[in-house]
Amino acid sequence: MIGAQALMKTLVDAGVEVCFTNPGTSEMHFVAALDGEPGMRAVLALFEGVATGAADGYARMADKPAATLLHLGCGLGNGLANLHNARKGKVPVVNIVGDHATTHVRYDAQLQSDIETVARNVSPGFVRTARSSAGLGRDAADAIAAARGLPGSVATLILPADVSWSEGGEPCMPPPPATPAAADPASVAAVAAAIRAGGRVALLLGGRALREPALLAAGRIAAHTGVKLLAEVFPTRLERGAGLPPVERIAYLAEMAGVQLAGLDHLVLVDAKAPVSFFAYPGKPSDLVPEGCQVLSLSTPAQDAAASLAALAEALGAAQAMPARQAAQRPGRPRGRLTAPKVCKAVGHLLPERAIIVDEAITSGLMLGLMTAGAPRHDLLTLTGGAIGQGLPSAAGAAIACPGRPVLALVGDGSAMYTVQALWTMAREALHVVAIVFNNASYSVLNVELERVGAGTGGPKARSQLNLGEPALNFAQMAQSMGVHAVRTDDAGEFANALAYALDHPGPHLIEALVPESLSGAKRKLLPWLLRSLPHLPQPLAQALKRKIAP
Amino acid sequence: MIGAQALMKTLVDAGVEVCFTNPGTSEMHFVAALDGEPGMRAVLALFEGVATGAADGYARMADKPAATLLHLGCGLGNGLANLHNARKGKVPVVNIVGDHATTHVRYDAQLQSDIETVARNVSPGFVRTARSSAGLGRDAADAIAAARGLPGSVATLILPADVSWSEGGEPCMPPPPATPAAADPASVAAVAAAIRAGGRVALLLGGRALREPALLAAGRIAAHTGVKLLAEVFPTRLERGAGLPPVERIAYLAEMAGVQLAGLDHLVLVDAKAPVSFFAYPGKPSDLVPEGCQVLSLSTPAQDAAASLAALAEALGAAQAMPARQAAQRPGRPRGRLTAPKVCKAVGHLLPERAIIVDEAITSGLMLGLMTAGAPRHDLLTLTGGAIGQGLPSAAGAAIACPGRPVLALVGDGSAMYTVQALWTMAREALHVVAIVFNNASYSVLNVELERVGAGTGGPKARSQLNLGEPALNFAQMAQSMGVHAVRTDDAGEFANALAYALDHPGPHLIEALVPESLSGAKRKLLPWLLRSLPHLPQPLAQALKRKIAP
Repeated sequence: MIGAQALMKTLVDAGVEVCFTNPGTSEMHFVAALDGEPGMRAVLALFEGVATGAADGYARMADKPAATLLHLGCGLGNGLANLHNARKGKVPVVNIVGDHATTHVRYDAQLQSDIETVARNVSPGFVRTARSSAGLGRDAADAIAAARGLPGSVATLILPADVSWSEGGEPCMPPPPATPAAADPASVAAVAAAIRAGGRVALLLGGRALREPALLAAGRIAAHTGVKLLAEVFPTRLERGAGLPPVERIAYLAEMAGVQLAGLDHLVLVDAKAPVSFFAYPGKPSDLVPEGCQVLSLSTPAQDAAASLAALAEALGAAQAMPARQAAQRPGRPRGRLTAPKVCKAVGHLLPERAIIVDEAITSGLMLGLMTAGAPRHDLLTLTGGAIGQGLPSAAGAAIACPGRPVLALVGDGSAMYTVQALWTMAREALHVVAIVFNNASYSVLNVELERVGAGTGGPKARSQLNLGEPALNFAQMAQSMGVHAVRTDDAGEFANALAYALDHPGPHLIEALVPESLSGAKRKLLPWLLRSLPHLPQPLAQALKRKIAP
Repeated sequence: MIGAQALMKTLVDAGVEVCFTNPGTSEMHFVAALDGEPGMRAVLALFEGVATGAADGYARMADKPAATLLHLGCGLGNGLANLHNARKGKVPVVNIVGDHATTHVRYDAQLQSDIETVARNVSPGFVRTARSSAGLGRDAADAIAAARGLPGSVATLILPADVSWSEGGEPCMPPPPATPAAADPASVAAVAAAIRAGGRVALLLGGRALREPALLAAGRIAAHTGVKLLAEVFPTRLERGAGLPPVERIAYLAEMAGVQLAGLDHLVLVDAKAPVSFFAYPGKPSDLVPEGCQVLSLSTPAQDAAASLAALAEALGAAQAMPARQAAQRPGRPRGRLTAPKVCKAVGHLLPERAIIVDEAITSGLMLGLMTAGAPRHDLLTLTGGAIGQGLPSAAGAAIACPGRPVLALVGDGSAMYTVQALWTMAREALHVVAIVFNNASYSVLNVELERVGAGTGGPKARSQLNLGEPALNFAQMAQSMGVHAVRTDDAGEFANALAYALDHPGPHLIEALVPESLSGAKRKLLPWLLRSLPHLPQPLAQALKRKIAP
């Protein structure tokens, strides 16, 4: 068998059953090999960022990697941003990047570039250029093992065309995925001692600590000891909703995060890193851990968060405690002129059982957490690496991982435009994704950031750089042009009707929510002042205000 | 002044007057500084690949660099493919990539990644991270000098947010662009001797050798000595049309290039590299120079092609020769069912004076060269680096460089989808671009390549990877959703009417040409066989056949 066939068999035998593709000439033998492997599903994307974002969303929900198929260094470049999100989320991806034949490289043909260099940005742990068809199966097995290591990562296998097309391929089986160990007893004892000491303690949960088994163990500890449960700001996958222990996410805005973390004596990391601000701001610390707060680590991303928390519960005598569970409750049906909070309210009102929500709504999604807190159980996927253009592609990937579960992607207008080609893949694969695009005709968050970084309110040229309204974008029409059913509305009741319809009718839908900027006029002027004041207010007032802004 | 202001002033004072932007929080001070510099035009793109492609197209026509403004490593990643095209075309670009504040880097926040590593892929000659506001002006001047060096290149300046926002900035003036020297006399003499020796000689013109002064000098040499004039396969910018000496471009398909190059005794490189095949194919050489043909270099991309050719003409006694000039002639108006060749025919029929054509039509554009050969003088920009997604963005950039000149972008459907967001920028800036999208519902070239690389005709899964027809894309609707006037048609007469209307009405237009695949059915089956046979046929027959396939 040729190299490409051995690669395909290695992938499928190891359980890598989906490949998100955007192939070119150098990948034609891999493409031809698809027909010999009924176990491999190939999902075509019209842009590489869609393929990589879909692989990210797939793996978050499937808990195993998909493969990508990209065309040389430029294809990898196009896919880099969403691979970055996967890397930051510790999501396993087996990235296959076709290259020129090894004999062709020295001619510096048009598409020649240094692929390994680009790949290191997202695959610091595993970048390999396959050198022979005989070794390709082993290379692929190593890439799979690296991707699904502890923790998950992006592994990049560069596949020269002649390695792909030559005979002598041999499939290879990677070792089974490793089982993570629980935290070592010394860490458990140290954390238990800190909690027993009676100060103010919070557990900061990230990664796998935001899945049900870990959440229940953390909930037992909280119920028994009174520790606070916090979640990292942008979780890879958060299980939440009615019946699960609620956790409070760290706020994106550092000033608000400061309110959440103020007064803590101990912050215990569970599969999480100590909180830092998303960006730096002049004169403000990047480290969000308050002075005098000691940071302890219970378990690392390479360890078993649920087992670690169970061991901690045991050590604290909390193993039989009853965790607080989120009560089932839904907001009412929104009415009147549509606004971003009303979109979130409609989502909370209608969210079906076992939905998957992808949140890339930036400012427009501020109320999403509150409005869906008591909705039926669901998974929330967020922007782990901060690279926008993740929402639509990862929704497509999540839908492929979980057929039968509806996926809602809440996406800002600015974000949606980066990888809007994902809509076509949704239509082609008939995925049940409801894409909700908040059209407020601006890079709304940057209007806030402009002032937060101390650049003032901006003159006409600066403000024009944040304005997406000239000309106005019509996302419903754009979706229809790619075969996706779509509507647009500025009325809350109509929005709720459209959402109900979309949830009831499998297949992709786009609902364009025409909303005013969440932070416009007086609110935008007030916010920077309020944020600056927060650290200086008495805690109860600061906390009340923080809840008012971003509950 | 702060660093951002010094940077802005350095750019404008050096003649960098346009910045193609997609900013984020870390670039807000640069954005705010726009209002202080009336000499800087900021052009917003909704995706970084649009910004970089526009910078490429701008510089090809303006003969000086624009700046880009990109957001960290992920923004650079999104812009990488079109920077690759610029690099391969030796096009000057000053790439400004915002980064986290220097104090923030060690916290490994969400968007943290290794930007320098990614940048080296496209900026091997100049990647620098600015370290102080005081030094930023000098850094920018060095970047500008590197970009407009001999030859042009992509220079990447990484701009940490605190370097941008801190006081102490000092503008700096780069040295004036260097004047390239003519070829050294020994090279001129060697080439002249080879031509005088009387064998079959071709001049392979690339880069600046495809502009009028060089073409005229080459034309004199050809008229006087009988040498053949060839152009590289994907020119950065080719001046052509009625009144200019015609040159024959090397074919994309290596088999056809072999016919063009067969029998040469000497191939003389003028600002060009020796021809190699675009991809490697099993059992075929990558090097297209025929056996026994000696390759000579007249001048390098760092030298003055026109002066070198003038010196050669002088040495050959051809300085007063009359170059052959392309006669003015246009094809007739096409009729009947629209096909890709009829689109090219309509373009040739209607092309206005001083138009700029961007050709990214892959298989559909095969007849473009023939159909426009005798049209009024125009510039042709092509896919120098082979990274598709270049057509629409570079058309936008070319239109900004040359207000008053109509730009036609001929783009395949597959290519158009990579950077379709460029349409919005065209509408926002009211650019006179006519985007012609060939909708044949497939990655047509890959249908050919699948067989050319020896992967057979593909099973249903493989062929499905090359099919863009399920669901069908509607590019006219997509363009309208971004504020661009658009029509679609499958009738040649209607197409010609739409093109005439678009050319007569400044502002952006998209015409969706619904065409059958250029290479479908019997033609597709025949082509690989024909290509395989070409090298074995007698030259006159091979040449006639080659002209028939791709004139």
